[in-house]
Amino acid sequence: MRLVRFLDPASGLPMDGRLEGDVIVSESVSIPVEQARLLAPCEPTKIVCVGRNYAAHAAELGNEVPQRPLLFFKPPSAVIGPNDEIVLPKSNLIHHEAELAVVIGTRCRNVSADEAMSVVLGYTCMNDVSDREAQKWDKNWVRAKGFDTSAPLGPAIVTRDEIKGPFHVMSRVNGEIRQDGSTADFIFTIPELIEEITHYMTLEPGDVIATGTPAGVGPLVSGDAVEIEIEEIGILRNRVR
Amino acid sequence: MRLVRFLDPASGLPMDGRLEGDVIVSESVSIPVEQARLLAPCEPTKIVCVGRNYAAHAAELGNEVPQRPLLFFKPPSAVIGPNDEIVLPKSNLIHHEAELAVVIGTRCRNVSADEAMSVVLGYTCMNDVSDREAQKWDKNWVRAKGFDTSAPLGPAIVTRDEIKGPFHVMSRVNGEIRQDGSTADFIFTIPELIEEITHYMTLEPGDVIATGTPAGVGPLVSGDAVEIEIEEIGILRNRVR
Repeated sequence: MRLVRFLDPASGLPMDGRLEGDVIVSESVSIPVEQARLLAPCEPTKIVCVGRNYAAHAAELGNEVPQRPLLFFKPPSAVIGPNDEIVLPKSNLIHHEAELAVVIGTRCRNVSADEAMSVVLGYTCMNDVSDREAQKWDKNWVRAKGFDTSAPLGPAIVTRDEIKGPFHVMSRVNGEIRQDGSTADFIFTIPELIEEITHYMTLEPGDVIATGTPAGVGPLVSGDAVEIEIEEIGILRNRVR
Repeated sequence: MRLVRFLDPASGLPMDGRLEGDVIVSESVSIPVEQARLLAPCEPTKIVCVGRNYAAHAAELGNEVPQRPLLFFKPPSAVIGPNDEIVLPKSNLIHHEAELAVVIGTRCRNVSADEAMSVVLGYTCMNDVSDREAQKWDKNWVRAKGFDTSAPLGPAIVTRDEIKGPFHVMSRVNGEIRQDGSTADFIFTIPELIEEITHYMTLEPGDVIATGTPAGVGPLVSGDAVEIEIEEIGILRNRVR
């Protein structure tokens, strides 16, 4: 299934639905997806992000490959949906980062890698929008990676029974390919990440693990159209202001 | 007013109430506080914590005083209430940190320091339970400060019209005073912190800013009884397991 959230045109309220071809089907309404305003497909209570999870990306920023997953948080206030605007903070260098987002389906704690896939609802696309300038002085990246609109998510959650990966993760800016990698190159796999994170903290339904970005990150400036595409999952499009 | 959340003994559901002396008063029920199970007094979507906001505490851990606020996040899953158990992760050194928690009352963004107090609902106590061992390798402190039960909050939110500070912030372990400081020694004031944080991100009602800890942090071990006391606000008590 391809799960979406959207604004019901009649009530103006957020609704859950599923995509069937180009039509959103929910309990009360069926509408063509191009007539709906899509929202981020889940409402995370937290987003646990993984840095440097592809060796080639760690190298391009001059970083070593970590021995344990490098983790950081984005807050719920950073989330925007498909087609929403990314509003850049004042900075001389903001980067896009195409990421596979794992969406949790079951409240869980202390999940072993062997059992980890059972807590996964599915997958969607995320753009880990990052302020490289702030990363130099902002020790825990709260401001560098936690600003409003820094976590575009969507367009749909593809449930894990439908696809098994590895996933082809791409970004394009104004139509030009910037990143083109594969989750086959993960340093830490999805089950390993779930085991590590849930060793410390409870994950809730709708929580997101952003699994890191492949090489090819680059700048975003006002007016850009940025796309994160993951094959079999979809394309997350946002304009930059 | 002294605002609390508690489990309604009849329904078993969380309820909002206010403390009048030793009685909790809500729309439907009045019960003595010692007969109620108190919950954390707010439900933050994020907790923005400030590190090294008292010069003497920065010095005791061998750190310099920061030029801009040192920020990090705790996730909502870290929150526990008064009298709940702090469950220690495996580590050879876990510390308590007594902190004044500022609870936000109004959704806000880009608030100037001059206007910042208008978005504050009130104040409560927080224990920023910290894994010093993990802080050495966990770059963004996700595991070192984000584990379940690492954010005890409460017992009540005292609304800002009732008290104006500076606040006397203490911790005791098994009755022995460990920390005894004053928010008069803040490096960054509450209005300055609100301006800095909301320059980057939206704060939601119930969100918490944990304002840093005074000198005197020390270890917690299983069996300890830890108290965070802030004069005029209350005492947050938790047992350690």
